[in-house]
Amino acid sequence: MQRYQTVSTEDIVKIHETSLKIMEEVGIIFSYAPAREILAKGGAKVEGETVYFPKSMVEQALKQVPSSFTLHGRNPEKNVEINTETTNFVGPYGAPFVLDIDKGRRPGTLDDFVNIVKLCHKMDNINIQSHISCEPGDTDVDTRHMEMVYNTLKYSDKPLMGSVLGYEAAKDSIEMAAIAHGGLDAIKDKPVIIGISCTLTPLSYDDKMAGAIIAYAEYRQPQLVNSLCLAGATSPATIAGSIAVQNAEILAGIVLAQTVNAGTPIVYSASGSSTDMRYGNLSIGAPESALFSLVNGHLAKYYNIPCRISGTLSDTKQADAQAGYESMMTLLMAQMAGGNFILHAAGILDTYNCVSFEKLMIDDEIIGMVKRIGRGVTVNDDTLAFDVIKEVGPRGEYITNRHTFANFRKEFYQAQLSDRARVNQDGLTIEERANARWKKMLDAYVEPSLPADIDTELKRYIENRR
Amino acid sequence: MQRYQTVSTEDIVKIHETSLKIMEEVGIIFSYAPAREILAKGGAKVEGETVYFPKSMVEQALKQVPSSFTLHGRNPEKNVEINTETTNFVGPYGAPFVLDIDKGRRPGTLDDFVNIVKLCHKMDNINIQSHISCEPGDTDVDTRHMEMVYNTLKYSDKPLMGSVLGYEAAKDSIEMAAIAHGGLDAIKDKPVIIGISCTLTPLSYDDKMAGAIIAYAEYRQPQLVNSLCLAGATSPATIAGSIAVQNAEILAGIVLAQTVNAGTPIVYSASGSSTDMRYGNLSIGAPESALFSLVNGHLAKYYNIPCRISGTLSDTKQADAQAGYESMMTLLMAQMAGGNFILHAAGILDTYNCVSFEKLMIDDEIIGMVKRIGRGVTVNDDTLAFDVIKEVGPRGEYITNRHTFANFRKEFYQAQLSDRARVNQDGLTIEERANARWKKMLDAYVEPSLPADIDTELKRYIENRR
Repeated sequence: MQRYQTVSTEDIVKIHETSLKIMEEVGIIFSYAPAREILAKGGAKVEGETVYFPKSMVEQALKQVPSSFTLHGRNPEKNVEINTETTNFVGPYGAPFVLDIDKGRRPGTLDDFVNIVKLCHKMDNINIQSHISCEPGDTDVDTRHMEMVYNTLKYSDKPLMGSVLGYEAAKDSIEMAAIAHGGLDAIKDKPVIIGISCTLTPLSYDDKMAGAIIAYAEYRQPQLVNSLCLAGATSPATIAGSIAVQNAEILAGIVLAQTVNAGTPIVYSASGSSTDMRYGNLSIGAPESALFSLVNGHLAKYYNIPCRISGTLSDTKQADAQAGYESMMTLLMAQMAGGNFILHAAGILDTYNCVSFEKLMIDDEIIGMVKRIGRGVTVNDDTLAFDVIKEVGPRGEYITNRHTFANFRKEFYQAQLSDRARVNQDGLTIEERANARWKKMLDAYVEPSLPADIDTELKRYIENRR
Repeated sequence: MQRYQTVSTEDIVKIHETSLKIMEEVGIIFSYAPAREILAKGGAKVEGETVYFPKSMVEQALKQVPSSFTLHGRNPEKNVEINTETTNFVGPYGAPFVLDIDKGRRPGTLDDFVNIVKLCHKMDNINIQSHISCEPGDTDVDTRHMEMVYNTLKYSDKPLMGSVLGYEAAKDSIEMAAIAHGGLDAIKDKPVIIGISCTLTPLSYDDKMAGAIIAYAEYRQPQLVNSLCLAGATSPATIAGSIAVQNAEILAGIVLAQTVNAGTPIVYSASGSSTDMRYGNLSIGAPESALFSLVNGHLAKYYNIPCRISGTLSDTKQADAQAGYESMMTLLMAQMAGGNFILHAAGILDTYNCVSFEKLMIDDEIIGMVKRIGRGVTVNDDTLAFDVIKEVGPRGEYITNRHTFANFRKEFYQAQLSDRARVNQDGLTIEERANARWKKMLDAYVEPSLPADIDTELKRYIENRR
C-alpha cells in the first residue's frame, strides 16, 4: 500500500547526517569488550568504552544489509517474507503482567505464556510468534529463555523470535530452533529465528545486547536492532533529535552485526516515543509515538532495510476507550509508515507492562480493520458498476442485486467483535465478547504436533544447560 | 498537512466520469417542482420528476463554486476560514438520543441540547456549532428548528449551522442568523450560517432538501450538499460505485445551487459507508467508512471545493474500546483525507443515533491527538539538537536539560483524559474521568451574552412564526 510520509526525504537525509555525526564525534559506548574488539578491527576508533564510527564504515555496513529474507516456520506453509514491502504482524513481547476480566491483573506464568502462544497460533492475523509472549515468572530464571523457545516451538508452528539476554542465551535460542529444523547445518542459510537486541539509550549498548547481536550475526540468523528513546529523558524533547539519537544507536548495532558477518539479515527497529513530563514516564499511546513510527519507517526505506514498527500500543490499564483510540492510532500509522515487522501487534496495555487476553481479541479486530484500509479501493468497470446503477435507477435498491452478493464479502470487512446492530444483540460489553472469544479460540486450539524426536532433543538441550 | 491518497488521480477521473454519465443517462429525481423548473431553465432535460444533466452544465457549475469563504461567528474572533486547506471541527449533528453515565440513554431534550452547545462552546477544538446538537424532543416540532438556532446563537458565539427542513425552515434559520449580524443587508456577502442538505439515495432529492438548497443559495449563504449512501443497500456494494452514485447526487445539488445563484459557497459533503449485511444496517465505524472519506476528500480536491468529512464515528452503544478504535480511525482518516469541515467531530455513538456526554470529552482528546499528528515533525538544527546531544553524551540524561524545558510543550501533546501514569492516579475509569470533565466544563461555562435587542428580536421572530 501507499505510505504516508510526514517529512520530506530531504529531512530524512538531515536526520541521517546528524546520526553519522553523532557516531563519529560523540560515539557509542559498548561495555562488552568483544564488541569493541570487533569494531576496532573493522575500522572504528575506540577510546575506553566509547566507539567512534567513521562515516565510510557505516555506509559500507548499510550496503551489506540484505533488503529481504524468508523467515521459516517449522511449518513451511507459515514461512513469511520479510522485505521492505510486506507487512507481518507479531505477537506481544516482554510484558511481566497479564490481565483478563475473570482473574484481573497478575504476574504472568508459564500457563499464561502458553495460552498466549496458542491464541497467536490461532489468530490468522498473527504471522510470527513473539519470544516473551509474556514473562513466565514461575519458571527458573536461568533456563527461562529456553523454556520460552521450547514452549513456543511446541505450541505453534509459525516462525518465532528468540532470546537476546546475552551471547549464550541467544546461542541457546538459535541452537534450539536449529534442532526443530534439522540441525545447525540445515539453518546456515535459512533464517529460522529472529532476535531483538535493544540499545541502552542514550548512545550505549550493555553486555547482553551486544553479545546477542554478535551471536545472531555469527549464525547468520536475522535480528532486529532496536532503540527505544524516551524523548525528553534519554534523548532530546524533540522528535527529530530523538530519532537522530535512535538512528545512531541502531546504525552502530547494524555495523557490529555486519562486521561480524557481512550480509546477515537485519530488521531496522526503532520504538521511541515521548515522555509524559507529569510522571517522567514513557507514553507509547501518545501521538508522538505515531509520528516517531512514520519517520522511523521513512528512514528504514531510505536505507532499503525492512523495518519493525510497533503495533497496537496503549498506556491505559484495561481494554477501555483509551486502549481503543491509542491502539488504532499506533497500528494504523504503523501500516502507513510501511512497517514490515509489526511487533506488539496485539494485546499490549500499560506501557508494555501487561498483556490483556481481551485486548488480544480486540486488537485482532483492529488489525483486520487496518488491513482492510491497507487494501485500498479498487476502481474499475466492475466496481464502478455503471450498468448496475442504470439498471437499479433512482430510488431503487441494491440489497437483493446480484452485484451486491458478488461483491460485499470482498469489499466490506466482516466485523468479529464490534457491535454494529441496531440493538446490541448479545447484551455483552466488548470486553465480555472478547473474553468469550479467546476462550472459544483456546477450546478450538489443536496442537501442531512437534515430532517426538525433536521434542526429546529440545528437552535434553534444556536439561544439559541446567 | 500532507494528504493520504488511497487511489490515483486517474481513478478519481474515472469516478467523476461515471458520475457525469449517471447524471446524463440515468438522471436524478427531484420531487420538488421549483427545483425542476430552475434546472430546466438552466439547461437540464426534465422528464417527469427525473432531471438529466448535460455534462457542460455540470462543468460550468463546478467552475462557479468558490474555493474558499469565511464563515462568521457573532464573535468575529471566532470566524473560521473554510477553504481546501484548513481543518475545522464541528459538533455532533442530528442524534435523537443522548447518553451519560449518570442517567443512561434517553431521548434528547432542550436541556441536553443547550448543554451540548455550551460544551462545544467551551471546547477549544470545536470551531463551528452544529445545528441539531441533539434532537430536542421536548420542543414543539413546528418551531424546533428556530429554537435550535436561537439556543445555539444565545449560548455560543461561534459560527453555526442552520436548518434544511425545507425552503421555509432554511429561510427562518438564515433570517435569524441575520438578526444576530445586523440584518439581511449585512449578510448579503457575509456567510453567517451554513446548512447541510442531504440527498435521498439513490439518485433523488426530496422536497425539503431541494427547497433548502434553493433557500441557502438565494441568500448566498454557504451550504454542504451531502450524500450518504449505504453501500450494498442504496448504492452498489463496491466503494467505487457507491462514490460514483454519491458524487452524481452531490453534483446535482451543486448545479441546483449554482443555477440559483452562481458563486454561492458550497462544501462538498459525502458520508457513505458500507452496510453490515448481517443486519442490513449502515456501519459508520467500518474501515470502509475511512476509505470512503479518503476518496471523497480526493474528489473534492479534484474539484477544488472545500470538503466535509465525518469525524469521530462509531456504531457501538457506549464509550468503550470500540468507540475508541472506530473514532480514532475515522477522525485520523478525515484529517488525512484533507477534510476541511469535519462534522460530528465529537460525541457520536450508535451509528449517529446518540450523543454521549462522556464521548464528547473522549473525542476532544482524540481531536487533540489527531491535530498533533497533523502538525507533523519539524526537522531543523534546533530540533535535531546535535549540540545538546554532544553535551549530554552517551548514558547522560535530558530530563533536566534546558532544551527539554524549551521544547517539550511544543513537541508533545499534553493528554487531558488518557491514563499515562505508572499507576492510575485517580482510580477512575476513562468514562468517569470524562464525566467529571464535562461537568467541570459546564460549571466553568460563561454565557457569551447576546445583546438584549437581538435576543428580543430573535424571540419575536419565533413568536411571529408560531
